[in-house]
Amino acid sequence: MEIPYKIYLREDQMPRAWYNLRADMKNKPAPLLNPATGKPMTREELCGVFCEKLVEQELDDSLPYYSIPQPIRDFYRMYRPSPLVRAYCLEEKLQTPAHIYYKYEGNNTSGSHKLNSAIAQAYYAKAQGLKGVTTETGAGQWGTALSMACAYLGLDCQVFMVKISYEQKPFRREIMRTYGASVTPSPSDSTKVGRAILAAKPDTTGSLGCAISEAVEAARSQPGYRYVLGSVLNQVLLHQSVIGLEAKTAMDLYDIKPDIVIGCAGGGSNLGGLIAPFMGERLRGESDCRFIAVEPASCPSLTRGVFAYDFADTGRVCPLAKMYTLGSGFIPAPNHAGGLRFHGMSPILSQLYADGYLEARAVGQREVFEAAEIFARVEGILPAPESAHAIKAAMDEAVCCRESGERKTILFGLTGTGYFDLLAYQRFHDGEMSDYIPNDKELAASLSALPRL
Amino acid sequence: MEIPYKIYLREDQMPRAWYNLRADMKNKPAPLLNPATGKPMTREELCGVFCEKLVEQELDDSLPYYSIPQPIRDFYRMYRPSPLVRAYCLEEKLQTPAHIYYKYEGNNTSGSHKLNSAIAQAYYAKAQGLKGVTTETGAGQWGTALSMACAYLGLDCQVFMVKISYEQKPFRREIMRTYGASVTPSPSDSTKVGRAILAAKPDTTGSLGCAISEAVEAARSQPGYRYVLGSVLNQVLLHQSVIGLEAKTAMDLYDIKPDIVIGCAGGGSNLGGLIAPFMGERLRGESDCRFIAVEPASCPSLTRGVFAYDFADTGRVCPLAKMYTLGSGFIPAPNHAGGLRFHGMSPILSQLYADGYLEARAVGQREVFEAAEIFARVEGILPAPESAHAIKAAMDEAVCCRESGERKTILFGLTGTGYFDLLAYQRFHDGEMSDYIPNDKELAASLSALPRL
Repeated sequence: MEIPYKIYLREDQMPRAWYNLRADMKNKPAPLLNPATGKPMTREELCGVFCEKLVEQELDDSLPYYSIPQPIRDFYRMYRPSPLVRAYCLEEKLQTPAHIYYKYEGNNTSGSHKLNSAIAQAYYAKAQGLKGVTTETGAGQWGTALSMACAYLGLDCQVFMVKISYEQKPFRREIMRTYGASVTPSPSDSTKVGRAILAAKPDTTGSLGCAISEAVEAARSQPGYRYVLGSVLNQVLLHQSVIGLEAKTAMDLYDIKPDIVIGCAGGGSNLGGLIAPFMGERLRGESDCRFIAVEPASCPSLTRGVFAYDFADTGRVCPLAKMYTLGSGFIPAPNHAGGLRFHGMSPILSQLYADGYLEARAVGQREVFEAAEIFARVEGILPAPESAHAIKAAMDEAVCCRESGERKTILFGLTGTGYFDLLAYQRFHDGEMSDYIPNDKELAASLSALPRL
Repeated sequence: MEIPYKIYLREDQMPRAWYNLRADMKNKPAPLLNPATGKPMTREELCGVFCEKLVEQELDDSLPYYSIPQPIRDFYRMYRPSPLVRAYCLEEKLQTPAHIYYKYEGNNTSGSHKLNSAIAQAYYAKAQGLKGVTTETGAGQWGTALSMACAYLGLDCQVFMVKISYEQKPFRREIMRTYGASVTPSPSDSTKVGRAILAAKPDTTGSLGCAISEAVEAARSQPGYRYVLGSVLNQVLLHQSVIGLEAKTAMDLYDIKPDIVIGCAGGGSNLGGLIAPFMGERLRGESDCRFIAVEPASCPSLTRGVFAYDFADTGRVCPLAKMYTLGSGFIPAPNHAGGLRFHGMSPILSQLYADGYLEARAVGQREVFEAAEIFARVEGILPAPESAHAIKAAMDEAVCCRESGERKTILFGLTGTGYFDLLAYQRFHDGEMSDYIPNDKELAASLSALPRL
């Protein structure tokens, strides 16, 4: 059977339920802890910050499938299915016997896979009768996705955007405004925590940790508001399973079984979603597929971090999560893959890595951009720097196949478009891009500040 | 039969041939004239500037179908079929009984439909054994598309980019560099005409007319190079017929017949391609579908121009084309829809308009951005300002249906993404966008300089 360049599912083939990978994990991811008591966060405690239905999804590690509500499926139909692409041209370029596939999530206005969870979180907020949601955004992908979802549902959306991004990425801000979101540079004087930070450091350009703290305070202080987050959490990986489910359905139509599944990993939302159904098969003993997480050498949480309870935010207002972490005080170098600059890793992926089901490797940003450029020229798509981490690893695996003569099937996640990263491409072309690898002393320092339980 | 949100053709349903609308036109578009002799440009004269096969396609007004060469079909499979989308959410928003469809051409890295002709022109250049091609680009869509096509085929690509765009749109320039093109700000000192202009006006920020002149000179002065153009020409409309052919095949699958087909019109490449097979039916007496060209009020070639022979470029180095024109010296106001800032209109569309088969209307840019924002919020896609002209007209027609109770079927072309137009959106949000309508005196002045035959 000839495999087409792109496989698009019909609407009636699209997933009707999300897959909860935790149901098939023998060692479940550890629960979130209340940092004040050291005890697992209760449903009630979590409901003060998150929507009720999302708390249920966050806590439930046994139900294998969650029906996708019809309004979310309607929204998915606006921009999904995403194509599963056979990378014929890349295979030809690499002269590899391997078959390479990628699932491309960049064909929507938010430009990445973030929309898959944004609409789910916005929907449950709306269904609970809330007025709006608050969140933070760094590079802007998550904020854009949430703005789009909220505009569709008529929900207020308040985004705290790291000040330096707010100033340096005015176009990201402008898309959010087009979708009716209010975008506040963080730190701001609209929250207590923001005012305190501004008083202490009037010239700060902000940080994701500070923006999280402001967004959480804003949700708590306004009746009818909750806070939402675009990665790391179990609920987010649940929603993102739509990526893997679509990919698996498309591959099954042509009897294709991946030997290796590869994804970039920042907080883990894309990788966790892409691998979900394939990892489920592996956990149930139905396949021996390999899984590779690719992270930047400048922020190597899996490859050089420790598996421990830590804060998800530098402001230390969030619950503790057990994850591979570099320490919540770790400040990653200004790598251009903003979506991968996070000190920790999703608890689900962390547990799978600890148990040996997931491999990890770290790559430098110059080799990532070299791979991105080759890919863009032969496959036509300009990739986001985050996504290009997966491209780099997929190309490396394909080259190994050329050398060994093996005809492996490689699937990787192409999470988004590089339209908003052209400054990074410019620096790469102009030879102004450097690699940065944290030294052991730096890592030891940030790890020494892990919370003691 | 329930219509899905998006109809994607299977690869075996994609067009195998382009449709040459001229074959069904009783009044053929007038031939290009040599400005020196006033006589039709001969095949030999045209072959000095354009590739041979493209000259054949330019001149042939009787063959109804041209087979699409397999390598071009392979390239099309990388980013086509484009989706035909049922705008359920927009219909709901407008509370209209009309059924609205749009063909979305923005899901490729060049961000617009331009790639459809870029790969064809690059392919024929390569097949003729040429080393490379030259072209001009204003806002950058065409230059980006051509760079992608040339990178795929291993052909050199030299782009003359209007200097002000080169400076103000560094990201567009950077994408072209990623695809290996050389991008020169125009006017430059690399051509005679460029040096002459720089000597006369050292501070000029350039113009499309000047960039065309430089690109043509560069093609003529380098062995193995030809010049290519992204709109206006008959050959370009031929290649762009792939848009309409896909749309018609998709609609036929569900027995949908459009009552109105709408597109924005600058040089006419998108509109000419979208309407081609539907207009063919109308010309053959098989339908009474209406066709509407939407142009900016600031550059109203169809609605306020004259049907006459004129130069396609302000530098007056190109052949004369019979078209609706505002005069080659007309300088459009800095409307944000850069792709619609052209003083003339494709000879094919001009003839159809003169013969009453095509309607035209001009719209102001603020009302266009209002429509764009409504569309983005309900349909999820951030449209290019050019495409938003078609959205505006489609919404107006749908509102008429609401008032009359008619259940018309409206199809419009959504030519591209607004990712590179966020400065325009920002000005719109900040209330800094003005409408500009040329007065009669201005138009009379530029029309008085039409060439006399």
